Amino acid sequence: MPLIESWVTSANSAETPFPLNNLPYGVFSVGDGPKKLGVAIGDDILDVELVCDAMPVNSDVLRDPRGWNGLMELGSTAWSTFRTALTHLLSANAPARPDALVPQTHATLHMPFTVSEYTDFYSGRHHATNVGTMFRGAENALSPNWLHIPIGYNGRASSVVVSGTDIRRPWGQLKGPNDEAPRWAPSQRFDIELEVGAIVGNASNGPISVDKADVNIFGYVLLNDWSARDIQAWEYQPLGPFQSKATATTIGAWIVTAEALAPFRCDTPTRQKPLLPHLRDTGPMLYNIALSVTLNGEQIAQTNYREMYYSAAQQLAHHTSSGCPMRVGDLLGSGTISGPERENRGSLLELSWGGKDPLMLADGTPRSFIHDGDTLGLHGAAEGDGYRVGFGACFGTVRPALEDPFRG
Amino acid sequence: MPLIESWVTSANSAETPFPLNNLPYGVFSVGDGPKKLGVAIGDDILDVELVCDAMPVNSDVLRDPRGWNGLMELGSTAWSTFRTALTHLLSANAPARPDALVPQTHATLHMPFTVSEYTDFYSGRHHATNVGTMFRGAENALSPNWLHIPIGYNGRASSVVVSGTDIRRPWGQLKGPNDEAPRWAPSQRFDIELEVGAIVGNASNGPISVDKADVNIFGYVLLNDWSARDIQAWEYQPLGPFQSKATATTIGAWIVTAEALAPFRCDTPTRQKPLLPHLRDTGPMLYNIALSVTLNGEQIAQTNYREMYYSAAQQLAHHTSSGCPMRVGDLLGSGTISGPERENRGSLLELSWGGKDPLMLADGTPRSFIHDGDTLGLHGAAEGDGYRVGFGACFGTVRPALEDPFRG
Repeated sequence: MPLIESWVTSANSAETPFPLNNLPYGVFSVGDGPKKLGVAIGDDILDVELVCDAMPVNSDVLRDPRGWNGLMELGSTAWSTFRTALTHLLSANAPARPDALVPQTHATLHMPFTVSEYTDFYSGRHHATNVGTMFRGAENALSPNWLHIPIGYNGRASSVVVSGTDIRRPWGQLKGPNDEAPRWAPSQRFDIELEVGAIVGNASNGPISVDKADVNIFGYVLLNDWSARDIQAWEYQPLGPFQSKATATTIGAWIVTAEALAPFRCDTPTRQKPLLPHLRDTGPMLYNIALSVTLNGEQIAQTNYREMYYSAAQQLAHHTSSGCPMRVGDLLGSGTISGPERENRGSLLELSWGGKDPLMLADGTPRSFIHDGDTLGLHGAAEGDGYRVGFGACFGTVRPALEDPFRG
Repeated sequence: MPLIESWVTSANSAETPFPLNNLPYGVFSVGDGPKKLGVAIGDDILDVELVCDAMPVNSDVLRDPRGWNGLMELGSTAWSTFRTALTHLLSANAPARPDALVPQTHATLHMPFTVSEYTDFYSGRHHATNVGTMFRGAENALSPNWLHIPIGYNGRASSVVVSGTDIRRPWGQLKGPNDEAPRWAPSQRFDIELEVGAIVGNASNGPISVDKADVNIFGYVLLNDWSARDIQAWEYQPLGPFQSKATATTIGAWIVTAEALAPFRCDTPTRQKPLLPHLRDTGPMLYNIALSVTLNGEQIAQTNYREMYYSAAQQLAHHTSSGCPMRVGDLLGSGTISGPERENRGSLLELSWGGKDPLMLADGTPRSFIHDGDTLGLHGAAEGDGYRVGFGACFGTVRPALEDPFRG
């Protein structure tokens, strides 16, 4: 599929992340104005409330204070007819509606949807192998279950914030391997995790198949699962990460729909061990999405979503296997997406090998973990034939820890 | 404090769980009628909407479709003035309002509040020691962090149901220690966990002290964290329990307020190692609440909430330590509450020592885990001077697993 032309001329470029082929959903405001639902197109945002007469949904959906949850609740067929209507409205042969556009440079972006619950998976094999080797030795890097189920844990929905939100370095209990007792201090090993988040758009109430799970995914966002490695190392046994992952998780401001990504579907890697039938691949459910990480604007890693060992559909199917009810707005983090080489690693923990082999920045300074004031950015785009389906940046700047919150 | 007399005569008994000293909050309906907010008093429920003129809150709060979340959102001072007004309205020297009462036997009970997020802790020392011994051997029973932080993990709010809801035995991936590969099958080791849940009533957005956390807890419910031990054993390394705990968590239908429990405050056990200052006890924040478990009506265990090593206030303070935002309606499970003796164990896993030493039922049959059709009940009450502050039962009946949900 080539680039589809729009009357928004900035969308007709091989470089824009937001051509008519994309149409990602966000929430924006201008100045002190209210939050509004918008669709990115070229350099602009379409204010969907202003075109609600042309949209095949109740206008309440386009004024949902929760964001795009209302559209999701209408179900997969409505998602598709809504996207078709948008495509018609913005296509080159439709009458121009410049009155319904807002330049992106004038807008502030907000959470694109309200997160019901947040689950974080651990389904990148290179990442799991790297971290497992550092924490438990190469012999025990992958736990015995890893090749049979998408390992995941429940995260904290209240901590999910939109790209651009400052992140406060957390305090926590830290204990190094040679310390006699733990101490209360700001995290010294604060880190990112490069992930893609899948958004559940159809609720379910019992076990669902991988095929059904695939249909239930509304779209995808970039996701940075900020992680305090020193808090994590001390707390994670035996019940998993808790406060180390609870400071914040940043998501991109634009939901790229599963429909927009359809041309970029690809298979999961070859299975080392056969999966049980209920988790088996039934078609290409990963996506070819080029991803990168920047530290203060300098690219420090690049990888691809197709490196995942499990697709979001497999993760969601597993998530429902026990009967766990899923709701519209549930967010599933992929797990850190690393690739085979050092430059493909999606966390500073891996890039600096736990601080033992620091990353060398362009200015010649070594770097292991995040410094106060650092801005970390995630970037992603699927590359089509003369066009891109981009996610917009997902960034956050780390601010110094609070003064000890419990002193005086 | 002795029993306070009410014009509802069934409340003036040393045996009722719901004297005027208690006043727990629930949601009920009668026949096909709407869900309504109610307060248990003796054998009846006070329909608070019918007395809203006498209540010091906006009547919308008493019609909140979410349950008691609206009252919680008004903050601690409002909780107290509301309770005072209820106490006046129902006291023996107030005019009787039998028109505002519904017999409990006529009512169906529903979720008393909407759960924002659910966290499950692991703060019972006897339980953690028992389970740790079974899973990792006596030498490694308590992980090194256990005496320093309340270990917990995020659970699944969507799976929380009210007492009386049938529970479907889950399917899952199971792999015994001698199996070559995992298989997909219904759980054979389905279990309960006897817990008390604390409800966060004031939101917070950053680290809070133990004292502040104590103030932020609105009330308590009985909580049964249904657990599939065979799924858990296979999945829990390295990131903790996930699907093994996602089938359902049952809570009691009545929220017993922190105010009602105030006369029963008691200290946590002596510390084996000193806690860091931000988690240190600053007063009695546990409660003396007698607890028991029944299997098809037969009592199989009894223990007390004061066996906890950490109070809910300490758990909540720890939960916020990384900056994790807490919201009104967050639910914190205490962790399984076992005591020192075999008859004090709050799970079948412990009562049958992993199935190796089955529990002997009164009819002479041995029992290790839950059978289809079993009804499990949790019971709790604080015993005052001539009165009780009871929680009402928290029960659920286990139904057979679905036919294989992925066959045909």
